[in-house]
Amino acid sequence: MSRFFSSKLNKLVPYVPGEQPKERDYIKLNTNESPFPPSPKAVKYAGEAADLLQLYPDPDCKMLTEKVADMLGVESQEVLLTNGSDEILNFAFMAFCDESSPAIFPDITYGFYTVFAQLNNVPYEEIPLEEDFTIDTNAYMGNRGTIFIANPNAPTGIALSVAEIEAILKANPDHVVVIDEAYVDFGTESCVPLIRKYDNLLVAQTFSKSRSMAGARLGFGVGCKALIQDLNTVKYSTNPYNINRMTMAAGLGVMEDEAYTKKNCKTIMDNRTYTMEALEALGFTMTDSKANFVFAKHPAIEGAKLYQALKNKGILVRHFDKSRLTQYNRITVGSRAEMEALVTAVEAILEEQS
Amino acid sequence: MSRFFSSKLNKLVPYVPGEQPKERDYIKLNTNESPFPPSPKAVKYAGEAADLLQLYPDPDCKMLTEKVADMLGVESQEVLLTNGSDEILNFAFMAFCDESSPAIFPDITYGFYTVFAQLNNVPYEEIPLEEDFTIDTNAYMGNRGTIFIANPNAPTGIALSVAEIEAILKANPDHVVVIDEAYVDFGTESCVPLIRKYDNLLVAQTFSKSRSMAGARLGFGVGCKALIQDLNTVKYSTNPYNINRMTMAAGLGVMEDEAYTKKNCKTIMDNRTYTMEALEALGFTMTDSKANFVFAKHPAIEGAKLYQALKNKGILVRHFDKSRLTQYNRITVGSRAEMEALVTAVEAILEEQS
Repeated sequence: MSRFFSSKLNKLVPYVPGEQPKERDYIKLNTNESPFPPSPKAVKYAGEAADLLQLYPDPDCKMLTEKVADMLGVESQEVLLTNGSDEILNFAFMAFCDESSPAIFPDITYGFYTVFAQLNNVPYEEIPLEEDFTIDTNAYMGNRGTIFIANPNAPTGIALSVAEIEAILKANPDHVVVIDEAYVDFGTESCVPLIRKYDNLLVAQTFSKSRSMAGARLGFGVGCKALIQDLNTVKYSTNPYNINRMTMAAGLGVMEDEAYTKKNCKTIMDNRTYTMEALEALGFTMTDSKANFVFAKHPAIEGAKLYQALKNKGILVRHFDKSRLTQYNRITVGSRAEMEALVTAVEAILEEQS
Repeated sequence: MSRFFSSKLNKLVPYVPGEQPKERDYIKLNTNESPFPPSPKAVKYAGEAADLLQLYPDPDCKMLTEKVADMLGVESQEVLLTNGSDEILNFAFMAFCDESSPAIFPDITYGFYTVFAQLNNVPYEEIPLEEDFTIDTNAYMGNRGTIFIANPNAPTGIALSVAEIEAILKANPDHVVVIDEAYVDFGTESCVPLIRKYDNLLVAQTFSKSRSMAGARLGFGVGCKALIQDLNTVKYSTNPYNINRMTMAAGLGVMEDEAYTKKNCKTIMDNRTYTMEALEALGFTMTDSKANFVFAKHPAIEGAKLYQALKNKGILVRHFDKSRLTQYNRITVGSRAEMEALVTAVEAILEEQS
């Protein structure tokens, strides 16, 4: 730390992304990336866009915003594209949280929420998940702050129903409720249709997972026009050209290829079923994940130990060093071949163990 | 504005980027873009990178950071790559400005500084430029806040010498001095070599202008390791994957093609000389611009009127509606053909005028 670092931030503990080791090739099941390449249309459009890099991108992201709005069945003034969904989440902390509207979220969820709260000097309250890692929606009915709920939640994959979220929206009329739908395309119903009914709803989504574009950095928020206007004020005060030309073009390409995205999502859901059945047969317990990962523990081996044993065998999964999660690992659902390799490796490890 | 917008931000006036009209093709001399396409290597690498979009980019930006550090003759821990140089500037406001270290900058300079100050709730002081638009360095010797100086300055193009900046660094030992070198490659000496001597120096640069990559969004900061570490803390608390794979690859490509960049910069400097001589012959007065734009006024025509007349003729320049600048227009230096078209159009307008 330098002697100039502001005292506002000098206790900030940054987010730690999943490891990206470079020393050997791993089967990467640790950052919830898609095992499938991006749509050929995304690749083609991105390559073409590179020819015009000397010109600034359209700060209004007009074409892509209209395309996303069309897909969602909303108007373009109800959508804001961002540099990954992390950016729309940070914008929401900036725009809608302060002393009079502290941030409220589960104690076990996407690890960035606490970081965004600290970064923006926003008070926050973490509400413990139930023993079985479900969210007790009754704990979110207080109308006392800005609520952030990942649905499905991470790293558990457990989803709330739209009706449960609607109850939270109704009970918090004076505060924004942010529903982070990063993993919605793997079998959960989206809350987007509720934005016309609730002016306090902001939905965040990403192109990183189901659309195979983690490397392009593209996400978006959906909400009523006034909310999106506020978020645009933040965007135009932070980085008006937040999305580069190539990413915009890739986004357009993948949107024109929704059949490809749907097919990939179906394959991943099938592979999730395969993985859960295979791990269950080996004695694992898992949460009811609706995401592109499973969250699994085994009675005979510590989470950290399994993580390390898998890493030694060339398979990366994600272990969280947090008290209630130590027994678990979060395992991204990749291709069938990758999941078979995982199951084989786990079998061998459990055998060595016994 | 929604009823949820935080009172912290509800007086925020966002930055207004140069207009990007879509209704017709203009000769765009209003946002200081390069008239030259990006290096073929940048285009090639970016296209190749699009094949792997399903994977997150390297959050450490290792290869590109090392390449930029090599070019600058510094270590990679002394460099932080960002999503355009706007991001490194915002990070500097976040990290180094607060009540005890307010932001200090000229009253006429890059318009984003006031926005960043407001966004981050940082007090700020604007120091008036001299009558001739030069910076009076004596006004920056107070050791009382974090200083932001664009060198060369915008929209005047006037540069300070490294010796003058060194005097400011010496006189402000307890505060960071940010030198924004967005336009340094068009004939100004960089302050980068001073980072080893002054732990309070942060230099910001961009790939947008001299490297024809405005559409890719790539910038960087250079400073001592402790400063860069602080800025990394902010980055990893804001958007760890702030730079996408294609932009990183394009950045590597253009860095391998420095001869192309140097040749383009020389052409732009030659075209600047041509433009200034031609406008002077038409009765314009200009600042001594060392940037890829000229800042010009004419005794016979109001700035806004000339701007509008040029727009009617299909040429966009930038007019600033700020009291001391109303007579002026900022005109990007483009290709020789573009500048000839500008001079011809200006001649015709002046003739119609008289």
